[in-house]
Amino acid sequence: MTTAARRERLRSLLRTAGLDGLLVTDLVNVRYLTGFTGSNGALLLAAADDAHSRFGTDSRYTIQSAAEVPDLEPVVERSTALALAGLAAALGVRRLGYESDAVTVDARRALDAATDAELVRAPGLVARLRVVKDDTEIATLRRACAIADTALTDLLAAGGVRAGRTEREIALDLDFRMRGLGADGPSFDSIVAAGANSAIPHHSPTGTAVQPGDLLKLDFGALVAGYHSDMTRTLVLGRAADWQRELYDLVHRAQAAGCAAVEAGVPTADVDAASRNVIAAAGLGDRFLHGLGHGVGLVIHEAPALSAASKDVLEAGMAVTVEPGVYLADRGGVRIEDTLVVREGDRPDPLTAFPKELLEV
Amino acid sequence: MTTAARRERLRSLLRTAGLDGLLVTDLVNVRYLTGFTGSNGALLLAAADDAHSRFGTDSRYTIQSAAEVPDLEPVVERSTALALAGLAAALGVRRLGYESDAVTVDARRALDAATDAELVRAPGLVARLRVVKDDTEIATLRRACAIADTALTDLLAAGGVRAGRTEREIALDLDFRMRGLGADGPSFDSIVAAGANSAIPHHSPTGTAVQPGDLLKLDFGALVAGYHSDMTRTLVLGRAADWQRELYDLVHRAQAAGCAAVEAGVPTADVDAASRNVIAAAGLGDRFLHGLGHGVGLVIHEAPALSAASKDVLEAGMAVTVEPGVYLADRGGVRIEDTLVVREGDRPDPLTAFPKELLEV
Repeated sequence: MTTAARRERLRSLLRTAGLDGLLVTDLVNVRYLTGFTGSNGALLLAAADDAHSRFGTDSRYTIQSAAEVPDLEPVVERSTALALAGLAAALGVRRLGYESDAVTVDARRALDAATDAELVRAPGLVARLRVVKDDTEIATLRRACAIADTALTDLLAAGGVRAGRTEREIALDLDFRMRGLGADGPSFDSIVAAGANSAIPHHSPTGTAVQPGDLLKLDFGALVAGYHSDMTRTLVLGRAADWQRELYDLVHRAQAAGCAAVEAGVPTADVDAASRNVIAAAGLGDRFLHGLGHGVGLVIHEAPALSAASKDVLEAGMAVTVEPGVYLADRGGVRIEDTLVVREGDRPDPLTAFPKELLEV
Repeated sequence: MTTAARRERLRSLLRTAGLDGLLVTDLVNVRYLTGFTGSNGALLLAAADDAHSRFGTDSRYTIQSAAEVPDLEPVVERSTALALAGLAAALGVRRLGYESDAVTVDARRALDAATDAELVRAPGLVARLRVVKDDTEIATLRRACAIADTALTDLLAAGGVRAGRTEREIALDLDFRMRGLGADGPSFDSIVAAGANSAIPHHSPTGTAVQPGDLLKLDFGALVAGYHSDMTRTLVLGRAADWQRELYDLVHRAQAAGCAAVEAGVPTADVDAASRNVIAAAGLGDRFLHGLGHGVGLVIHEAPALSAASKDVLEAGMAVTVEPGVYLADRGGVRIEDTLVVREGDRPDPLTAFPKELLEV
């Protein structure tokens, strides 16, 4: 879908909301609607048409934005959002929505002083579009996930996971491989957690050397053209002990149950429950320390939330993670995570494909 | 300085502002005041003492936060900020400041519903502390800058900058070297811009191969323990043409003039002018497309701003960049940047040391 088509879709939401325009200042939303990839940009989208809309950036990005956003008239000002707000009335925008879930209290006050338009809270409008991915986005996510798969495969084939290597060295190796395979970078700080550290859900890699008998949890992803992949695999160095194998099998079954529940029309809380029940039945419900998963796209954690408290319902085209984990403090933890695209009346389309059988390295 | 000592300093600002406490939700400020490095944490700092203060995070970070924040009572809740706001009154905090420059309009509304305390706008209090770096911070920044210096030296020594290599390959090589030297990662997406691309101030590396005769602009830094280094060097592949040498010499002189003006007590606008005047005198003032520099620390761009419009005044212990640039569209650009620590009655202390003579590679 072109960015112009996305802007058209947003216009129909604006009309429904009774807004003459929307001031888009969340950079990710700006990128989604215009293609701009710099660090300072904003969009004044008029409900009327693109001719009454403006793209704002500062002088560092004049050349880049002309190439990336050829179809909107540019406004080059350091205080980008204020400049656009100041133009609203002259462009026929009287009721101007703003992203109240992204605009700070102080920025809201400054906008008020800069505009003659009426500022109206309008959270989540672009997010409502972004939550369902179009074909271009799914293709990009698929590429990002494939890079992560290949990086892990190559890492293992090269003997990159071996006793004596530190968590940091393994993380660096993985990140370097993803970049070499075409990623712009890791999609977040890669988590490599060995032994007892694997019981920390979001562990930062340390200088700890991995040891025979360790569980090794790898949670990582590739960033491609702004889109984030996300996967977790847990391995064992050497022969798995019985408790490790049991823990792994439990999480493996819980993850399969979660994936099987992913389908358009299903409340995400039900997907969470499908997976969580498997772990609870084994008496370890209180060791599953987080929600089951989340949407991924231009942001690594985005809507929908897959958790007990969520009111979200799956729709075809959503890209979500399914990542149950069980964490035994001071011993170790197992998490297994895939990224899937939700389908209508069908099993989800898995974007991550690395095998999930217990790997003894 | 310990995080406890930083909290004490913040308390005196709170008392001056007539606040009983501050709800710190900006993650960088939370890190500064507590040492917590995870992705969800908040601090309710009571003006009274640490015993009436609380650190909040969610269950993913129970183990990590116990290690990183041993000296504050934890509150483990998914909606961390709301939970802390809800406890304020019971902890004797009636007038509760919040970071109105970081809290969104919608989050402010949710806080209001969650607390019995009176919410008071309190922007920039922690930033006021952070702007002057303590010895530990300067030591960390120095380490980060030294890693960037060494990475560039090693890159050149290894022949990593040569015709035929792409901007992306050079960026990856640089990033990999910084990680290998102990950085947690690059401090931002490294800018490697060759030939005409060097005229784009914030160019993203592409698959373009560098060619003999190209200007090559490298703007990059190392991230170490949360602190960001920042430097730019511009080289020429092969023999520099006369126009390249003249452009380089101009920016080199402007950068030296900017560095020479850095001293405690000087308005940052004067520092900007000292450097900009050199470029303007050469008739290229309109090709210097951005401010002269910015503070660096836990955030890559932070206070103070070094620009014509800034009202900031330099203080001893500030860490700032000085980075004039001249950009000739379709031909090429030169930027030279150092990170410096401001001193009282003395020239600044340079943290980046890579030579600034024109390098023909």
